[in-house]
Amino acid sequence: MNRLKNFNAGPAALPLPALERARDELLDFAKSGMSVMEHSHRGKDYEAVHDEAIALLRELLGIPESYEVLFLQGGASQLFAQVPMNLVEKGQTAEYVVSGAWGEKALSEGKAATAMLGASARVSCTTGVGEGKEKSYTRVPLPSEVKVDPGAAFVHVTSNETIHGVEYEVDTARPFPSTGKVPLVADMSSDFLWRKLDVTRFGLVYAGAQKNIGPSGVVVVVVSKDLVAKGRKDIPKIFQLRTAAENKSLYNTPPTFGIYMVRNVLAWLKGLGGLGAIEARNRAKAGKLYAAIDANAAFYRCPVEKQSRSVMNVVFRLPTEQDEERFVAEAKKKGMVGLKGHRSVGGIRVSTYNAVQPEWIDELVAFMGELAKRG
Amino acid sequence: MNRLKNFNAGPAALPLPALERARDELLDFAKSGMSVMEHSHRGKDYEAVHDEAIALLRELLGIPESYEVLFLQGGASQLFAQVPMNLVEKGQTAEYVVSGAWGEKALSEGKAATAMLGASARVSCTTGVGEGKEKSYTRVPLPSEVKVDPGAAFVHVTSNETIHGVEYEVDTARPFPSTGKVPLVADMSSDFLWRKLDVTRFGLVYAGAQKNIGPSGVVVVVVSKDLVAKGRKDIPKIFQLRTAAENKSLYNTPPTFGIYMVRNVLAWLKGLGGLGAIEARNRAKAGKLYAAIDANAAFYRCPVEKQSRSVMNVVFRLPTEQDEERFVAEAKKKGMVGLKGHRSVGGIRVSTYNAVQPEWIDELVAFMGELAKRG
Repeated sequence: MNRLKNFNAGPAALPLPALERARDELLDFAKSGMSVMEHSHRGKDYEAVHDEAIALLRELLGIPESYEVLFLQGGASQLFAQVPMNLVEKGQTAEYVVSGAWGEKALSEGKAATAMLGASARVSCTTGVGEGKEKSYTRVPLPSEVKVDPGAAFVHVTSNETIHGVEYEVDTARPFPSTGKVPLVADMSSDFLWRKLDVTRFGLVYAGAQKNIGPSGVVVVVVSKDLVAKGRKDIPKIFQLRTAAENKSLYNTPPTFGIYMVRNVLAWLKGLGGLGAIEARNRAKAGKLYAAIDANAAFYRCPVEKQSRSVMNVVFRLPTEQDEERFVAEAKKKGMVGLKGHRSVGGIRVSTYNAVQPEWIDELVAFMGELAKRG
Repeated sequence: MNRLKNFNAGPAALPLPALERARDELLDFAKSGMSVMEHSHRGKDYEAVHDEAIALLRELLGIPESYEVLFLQGGASQLFAQVPMNLVEKGQTAEYVVSGAWGEKALSEGKAATAMLGASARVSCTTGVGEGKEKSYTRVPLPSEVKVDPGAAFVHVTSNETIHGVEYEVDTARPFPSTGKVPLVADMSSDFLWRKLDVTRFGLVYAGAQKNIGPSGVVVVVVSKDLVAKGRKDIPKIFQLRTAAENKSLYNTPPTFGIYMVRNVLAWLKGLGGLGAIEARNRAKAGKLYAAIDANAAFYRCPVEKQSRSVMNVVFRLPTEQDEERFVAEAKKKGMVGLKGHRSVGGIRVSTYNAVQPEWIDELVAFMGELAKRG
């Protein structure tokens, strides 16, 4: 098998050991005589995996008992609606800090969800410049730019904008906003679990699994028990966070194979040394890429402000679109794929999630240098 | 490998060829150099699988162009809320025909979902007898029992009650209700795609995949384009059926591996001869089980009215709970698992979904006869 070097933005590369483990026991999970997909979600064999996935998340991130760890479905896109449905009271306003396209989507769905329940949503701060197709995002906001109404239901941020490559707290001068007693909610889909993080600074964090922790079809939610308890009770049960919390995410049938894969990925991450080790590895990977960009400034240009440059999604432009096409095509010949920027912004995007091997980055960096030299 | 004979109610047995196909290419899907889980949902490799799954569903069920085929998430439990959110107008009432525990849940979530949008839901007919823990369901309603208000938003039925083993149209005297111009909506989770079915009699059909067509984490919806077009626009986009319809279920990242497994299962079903062949096989399987029950009436008792006896979930009782525990334990020793009735009703339940092999049923029937003789 000729395994490709996969820089996809998500669904993305998975750790080979996690995949091999799944393959080896796909027909006979834990010597149970059937596939993990064929097990009842109420049986002890599956439940052991489910519990292990939750325990590994708690251990790796240091999640305290005052927070719930939930597995939901529908992707971050569903949480854009489901989170405000839980957290706004009638007449309240939810506030959104927008630093890219995903923040815009979260806001748009937040508006629809809150309007349905007699509440509202508004932008409290945006870093977007320009309008329509020319609109660009090149940074996260400075702390001083975010004004929080103390009566707001919550403040929502997108911790890493996958399309634009801008991320909070890559530099200490670009921290997550301080929101006082107002809960901070973060969509962390594309930078969950790649670095150490104090989750108690957030009221709620959610992440689609398909970047750093598993296949698509699973969403992880880490939420304070306080917020769960305060959540609305006049929405359908399936959308109430308390339903998942009270039933250990087994109220209805969860995506069992997806959670099994998350377990495999988390076990691999723990074996690698946990978040401290993977953070060092990830920062080194991104550092090499940005160094290659800056060292060839006549050929590569990263539009993102240095202090907001994402460690997870490294975006850059070449002199012309033809050059960018050639970059993608030549890289593909060398077995490096998934490098095309998002269709809405163009350019090149290198996603450097946990499962992206350091040697793939080395090979890509060498290729970047060689191409810049050729010009 | 000692593969068990798996009679689970769901997640349930999957066809061995569908699992073997997944195992063989788990690390290298379609010679692409990566797992199907690692592919972008916007790439041509994954898209081919996605399109094939939709095309196979259309072909197997004979779904006309006037209907959409959608892949959603959240299980039937989410559709309990999402369907009324789409289909009720302000002030309208949704009607529920309840023939078991899943119908009760659909009604309960329908009430919450419609109340949120200024509409309502009510029972139009129930076959439940007794109250509380003693409540029992042993049949689907007669056509004459279902009265439909011509102004209703829709009439909802549960086509097969997995827990109670009662199913519509097993006998021609127990057809789905006639609802005139009011759309008929059916939760078909546990009897989707085991028999020929004219979907044009329904406005909307939904089914969690984890019984007959794949792993958990995927919901199939077959819905008339008329209903999609009429659906509410003042709910979050992610919940609007038109969003999935307009984007071929690729608005956001779908559960790609789950849909891939659905494709594998559908390809297997087509190879077996399609719905005509599997229906004959399924009716023969259930027929043998009911014959074994009736032939040993002093030992086995099926509580379900004969004309409503489910082909998918065959439920029965033994003289005592101790006998039932012995049944489950002795069967397990012979490699037959998943036979315990739902915790809410007790007894024995044999799920006979498509992937349950006829020879497993033969072995189970022989065991039933032997145990009855011993008494």
